[in-house]
Amino acid sequence: MSNTGTDRKFIAASAQLGPIACDEPRSSVVGRMLALLDEAKARGVSFVVFPELALTTFFPRWFFGNDADLDVFYERAMPNADVAPLFEAAKAAGIGFHLGYAELAEEEGRAVRYNTAILVDREGKIALKYRKIHLPGHREHEPERPFQHLEKRYFTRGNLGFPVADVDGGRYGTLICNDRRWPEAFRMLGLQGAELVAVGYNTPQHYPPAPEHDHLQDFHNHLSLQAGAYQNGTYVIGSAKAGFEEGCELIGGSCIVAPTGEIVALAATRGDELVTAPINLDRCREIKANIFNFALHREPDTYGLLTAPKDA
Amino acid sequence: MSNTGTDRKFIAASAQLGPIACDEPRSSVVGRMLALLDEAKARGVSFVVFPELALTTFFPRWFFGNDADLDVFYERAMPNADVAPLFEAAKAAGIGFHLGYAELAEEEGRAVRYNTAILVDREGKIALKYRKIHLPGHREHEPERPFQHLEKRYFTRGNLGFPVADVDGGRYGTLICNDRRWPEAFRMLGLQGAELVAVGYNTPQHYPPAPEHDHLQDFHNHLSLQAGAYQNGTYVIGSAKAGFEEGCELIGGSCIVAPTGEIVALAATRGDELVTAPINLDRCREIKANIFNFALHREPDTYGLLTAPKDA
Repeated sequence: MSNTGTDRKFIAASAQLGPIACDEPRSSVVGRMLALLDEAKARGVSFVVFPELALTTFFPRWFFGNDADLDVFYERAMPNADVAPLFEAAKAAGIGFHLGYAELAEEEGRAVRYNTAILVDREGKIALKYRKIHLPGHREHEPERPFQHLEKRYFTRGNLGFPVADVDGGRYGTLICNDRRWPEAFRMLGLQGAELVAVGYNTPQHYPPAPEHDHLQDFHNHLSLQAGAYQNGTYVIGSAKAGFEEGCELIGGSCIVAPTGEIVALAATRGDELVTAPINLDRCREIKANIFNFALHREPDTYGLLTAPKDA
Repeated sequence: MSNTGTDRKFIAASAQLGPIACDEPRSSVVGRMLALLDEAKARGVSFVVFPELALTTFFPRWFFGNDADLDVFYERAMPNADVAPLFEAAKAAGIGFHLGYAELAEEEGRAVRYNTAILVDREGKIALKYRKIHLPGHREHEPERPFQHLEKRYFTRGNLGFPVADVDGGRYGTLICNDRRWPEAFRMLGLQGAELVAVGYNTPQHYPPAPEHDHLQDFHNHLSLQAGAYQNGTYVIGSAKAGFEEGCELIGGSCIVAPTGEIVALAATRGDELVTAPINLDRCREIKANIFNFALHREPDTYGLLTAPKDA
C-alpha cells in the first residue's frame, strides 16, 4: 500500500526538525512530526527519515548527577503511547519511516541505555533496529566546556552490529550521527548490499576541542555523507535536528544523496522542513556493478590492519 | 638541505603533466618535469608530486599482442639513465619528489610488471616504494570499447602492502589512481600515522561501462581525495596526467587537500602545471587528536566483514 510509485522507484524525504526545548513534551514533538508527515503525504512521499534522538532535546549536552533526571529522555518501549499517533498516521498513509530515539533496555535485569534508530515499513512494522556504535564525545563531566557531549557516558555501544534489512522492496540500513564520518561503518552496510542508508544527526556548529573547524561542520557532514554514498553505491538520506536548541547551535544541511554522491535535495532552513527527491534503487547498480564492483575490485586480504585490535 | 621552511612546515607542489604522446621519448618528458622542477624551486617548494605512470603515455588504453611492444613502457631500474637528470636536479635543489612509473621487476628469474610509485627524499634517496593494489579495468581485450583499460592484464597486484615512511621529518604514504577511491586504502595509511599522501592518477573523462557518469569524473576524484584526507587527518596531494592524450581525454583537477578535507590549491588547466600550497604537518593533529582519534573512537572489533575473504 505504497503512497505512490513502486517498491524500487518512489519519493523519499528527509524530515528535518528544528530545535526541541528541554521542556517540550513528546506530544508536541510528535505533533510537529505529524505535520511533516502530512506534507510528505501531500507530496507523494513513501519513506521519511526523521533525525537522531528525534523525540527530545539533545540531552547529552548536560551533565546529570542522577539517573532520575536522565531517565526522562529515554523510551522504554517502541512504539509507546507518545509515538503511537506517528506509527498510525504513517501506516494509514502507506509511508515507511526512520526514527531515532534514546532507548532504555532491560538486559538481565539491568537497565542499559542505547542511542537507537528504527526503520518502520509501510505497514507499520519495525523492520530494522540499530544501536549506535561510534559514540562521540566524552565520559566524564568537563565543566570547562561551554556544553557537554556525554554520549560515551549516557549510552552503551550498540550490540546489534551494522544490520541491513529488506524493507518494502529495497535493502535499507541506518547509521547514527558520528557513525557517518567513519568509512568503516558505511562499508559494513555496503558489503551487505545496502541501497538506502538513513542517517539522523544532532551536530553542534561549535566543536570545543577544535573550534578552528567550526566553519567546516556543514562541509564535513556533506563530505562524509557523499563519500559514503558514492563509495558504496547507495542512496543516503541525512536528517538533522537543527537550529538554536537550548543555547546550542546545531547544523542543518539535511539532504538526500544519490548513489553517485550527488546531493539531489537539500534543506534551506534550520527549522522543521521536509526535503524530497525521487529515488530509483536500481540506479545503485551503476556504481555497484562498475567502479565499486566489490567482487572484482576489492582486495580484502591486504586490509588486515583495519580489523586489528586497537592495542595491537 | 631543504629548499625552504622546515621539515614540518614547507611548500609542496602538485606537478600536473599534460598529455604524453605514444612516441614522445622519455628525455622529452623528463625535460618537461625538469621545467616544472625549476618553477618549483623558484617558488620555494620542498616536495613535488608527479603523476602516475609519469614517464610515458597511458599505455593500458591499447591491447598489445606481444610483450616486446609492451616492454618499452616499463622501467627496469630506478633511477635509470633517462630519469637521472630529474634525480640530480631535485637533489641539487633540496626538493623531495613522488614519481609514478611502470616497473618491470625480475622475481625468481621471471619478469613481473607493477604499477609503481616512489618517494625520493631531499637527499635524492628512494625512501618509499609502493606497488598499486587496486588495479582497475579488465584483463581481456574488449574491442567494443573505444579504448582499453588493461591494467589488470599489464600489472600484477602490488606485493608491498600499503607502506608509509618517515621522510624529511614527516610520515608519508602513496596511493595510485584507483586506490584513492577505496577508503580502505586511505585508512591503511591513516592507521600507520600518515601525514601526507601522494596520489598520482590517469583518469579518463569517459568511462565506457557507465558513460552516464562521465560528467562526474572530476567530482568523484575530489570527493575521494577530500574524504581520504579528512577521515585520516592527512594532507593529500593529487597529481594528474591530464588532457587529450592519443585521442583519449584525461581529467585534470590536480590539487592539494588539507587534513580538514579542504582543497587549498587546484590546477586551472589540463596541461603541464604546477600548483603549490603551504603545508604544516602539525595541523594533522587537529583531526587525528579529535574527531578521528582512532584510539578513542574507532571500533575495529565491529568491522569483521571488512577483511572477510571475498568468497565468504
